[in-house]
Amino acid sequence: MKIAAVEAIPFSIPLRRPSAFAHGTLSRADHVLVRVTTDDGIVGHAEAPARPFTYGESQESIVKAIDSWIAPAVLGTDPFARERVRDSLRWLRYNHTARSAVDLAIWDVLGKALGKSCHQLLGAFTESVPVVHIIFAEVPEAMGEEALRMRDRHGIGIFKIKTGKDPVVDTKAMRTVRSALGDGAEIYVDANKGWTPDEAIRLLPVMQETGITMIEEPTPAFHPLARRWVAGTSPIPVLADESVTRLGEVAREVLDGHAQLVSIKVARTGFTESARIAGLCEGLGTGVVVGSQMDGALGALSALAFAAAYPGTSKRGAELGYHLELADDIAAAPAIEHGRMTVPGVPGIGIEIDEPKLQHYRCDQD
Amino acid sequence: MKIAAVEAIPFSIPLRRPSAFAHGTLSRADHVLVRVTTDDGIVGHAEAPARPFTYGESQESIVKAIDSWIAPAVLGTDPFARERVRDSLRWLRYNHTARSAVDLAIWDVLGKALGKSCHQLLGAFTESVPVVHIIFAEVPEAMGEEALRMRDRHGIGIFKIKTGKDPVVDTKAMRTVRSALGDGAEIYVDANKGWTPDEAIRLLPVMQETGITMIEEPTPAFHPLARRWVAGTSPIPVLADESVTRLGEVAREVLDGHAQLVSIKVARTGFTESARIAGLCEGLGTGVVVGSQMDGALGALSALAFAAAYPGTSKRGAELGYHLELADDIAAAPAIEHGRMTVPGVPGIGIEIDEPKLQHYRCDQD
Repeated sequence: MKIAAVEAIPFSIPLRRPSAFAHGTLSRADHVLVRVTTDDGIVGHAEAPARPFTYGESQESIVKAIDSWIAPAVLGTDPFARERVRDSLRWLRYNHTARSAVDLAIWDVLGKALGKSCHQLLGAFTESVPVVHIIFAEVPEAMGEEALRMRDRHGIGIFKIKTGKDPVVDTKAMRTVRSALGDGAEIYVDANKGWTPDEAIRLLPVMQETGITMIEEPTPAFHPLARRWVAGTSPIPVLADESVTRLGEVAREVLDGHAQLVSIKVARTGFTESARIAGLCEGLGTGVVVGSQMDGALGALSALAFAAAYPGTSKRGAELGYHLELADDIAAAPAIEHGRMTVPGVPGIGIEIDEPKLQHYRCDQD
Repeated sequence: MKIAAVEAIPFSIPLRRPSAFAHGTLSRADHVLVRVTTDDGIVGHAEAPARPFTYGESQESIVKAIDSWIAPAVLGTDPFARERVRDSLRWLRYNHTARSAVDLAIWDVLGKALGKSCHQLLGAFTESVPVVHIIFAEVPEAMGEEALRMRDRHGIGIFKIKTGKDPVVDTKAMRTVRSALGDGAEIYVDANKGWTPDEAIRLLPVMQETGITMIEEPTPAFHPLARRWVAGTSPIPVLADESVTRLGEVAREVLDGHAQLVSIKVARTGFTESARIAGLCEGLGTGVVVGSQMDGALGALSALAFAAAYPGTSKRGAELGYHLELADDIAAAPAIEHGRMTVPGVPGIGIEIDEPKLQHYRCDQD
């Protein structure tokens, strides 16, 4: 079995409402569908989300990287030789989601070729994981109402609040959401690098008062002293995200005392490198959170397969609910019931492309 | 598919000649065959070598651990759920080779169930790896002759010399083997914790003169200050072995500056934990060597599958040749040709048990 084709198809789906965070607002999901086909006709899929503010990638750059660099390196390779594929792209810097979507699509091929789910191939620790709902920045009252709505509708008990724009508004948001949910829910915050270190430290009493369990990227990802100051001062663990986009960065951030927890996103490190990150973190005794790259249904299914595969990745809530923000999608994700998502248990990642919808939303054809 | 039986069968095979190292001499291979059978009749194998001087295990303790603790925890589990198996044994301390042989045998089952080699399931980076020949302690002249014999017979170009008993004899051994082989060969030493730190440091000029590339466990595994002194002084990298018997120990030894390189032995960490160790080491930028637990053919095949799977594990020579010391065996390992061993490319690990030989060498029946 050999890889015969790697296609990159940009598609764009409107969001139900804008997603606002510290340094930007999204109103559309501008993703790229990656399709890997083998010479015996097995087809694997994954999506690469264009996130210029984190990885500098656009739909155009993802398509270019796959068409010009990744596909030529991968064509003709046995899809089982994931390590050969990864190694052949060593020379290529960045282009995180482009390379990771190809890795994920190859794993989807393997699962289908073997008749096994990727969740099983990775280790099959558990069948379902608790889902985190991300509450984007709005007026605080609306954030509290949304938390209640998601709890009522899906039984979700873990919430991440987007903060980092204005400490006064952030304080109000934390208090409003906690007051709406009561004591039972877990709440953590993501400042998306939006606070100064002294702002983050000044907010610690409010975070303790409102029972915040983790602080994701409080300060800029590449200000080492500020990061060490916050992580060293905070009684609440700091969760690294934008600062840990590959294996070596994870080691650096943790060993430099910049964070106590690490976000693993399969959209940026695929399954192959994500498994190494999970190994590194387990060896160091560092907890992990399976994070959302603001993924659609394809990304949610991929993250679910990985999160459910290991004890360390399924212990905390996984950010698997962002696809609910999309007005439509080119595939379906499993329902969130009683606050959990269950692996579909079909071969591969579990992605079934709705071809008419792909035709409708793809943006490479007039 | 569920695990229906886990058997532990002790067997004992004489060595062609004694294997002498710093703190002991072996004259027999006292191993345990582990056989995992599923409810649909798939059978996987691996071996657990009893190494009391490293893990405190005996054939009897391995059989006891498998029969009384590991088998009950594993029976009825889907063999794909390797992470559930590993997690269910969290409470059990030590018993390294017993638990690892079960992990390896489960991987053998998976490969057979899927019709794929374990090497492919793990990542399939390359098909063959360079083999290290281990020269046990003898009179130095005999060690030099043996190196030449193994180079002539198998094309081997990488040698590990057992040292650590007497610095004067060790010096002579290094000079004799280097002089026999000339400049082309790679030579490293394993002191098996036998030197004092000052002995190790005093030997550094001889090691530099004879072109030694790595120093394995120069001093006792649990003397932190002595280890840091040697690793911090030596211009030749120190390879950790007896000190790194599980994931957390790898992190500790490397971060504490006790070693620059790590030996991964699938006999003590299976495939499942070995993959995490490889991830940890890659993240820290720490090189690895796939080491020998003085394995028979079953262990050589298991180590080969792992070593060939990743770039990091196949870069340096792998210690895959110890089975040649056994006078006979219950399975066959691939030939060593031009100094390399090639993955057999059959489903699973590639172990085919010779049942009459097993009947002959097993030591649980009269």
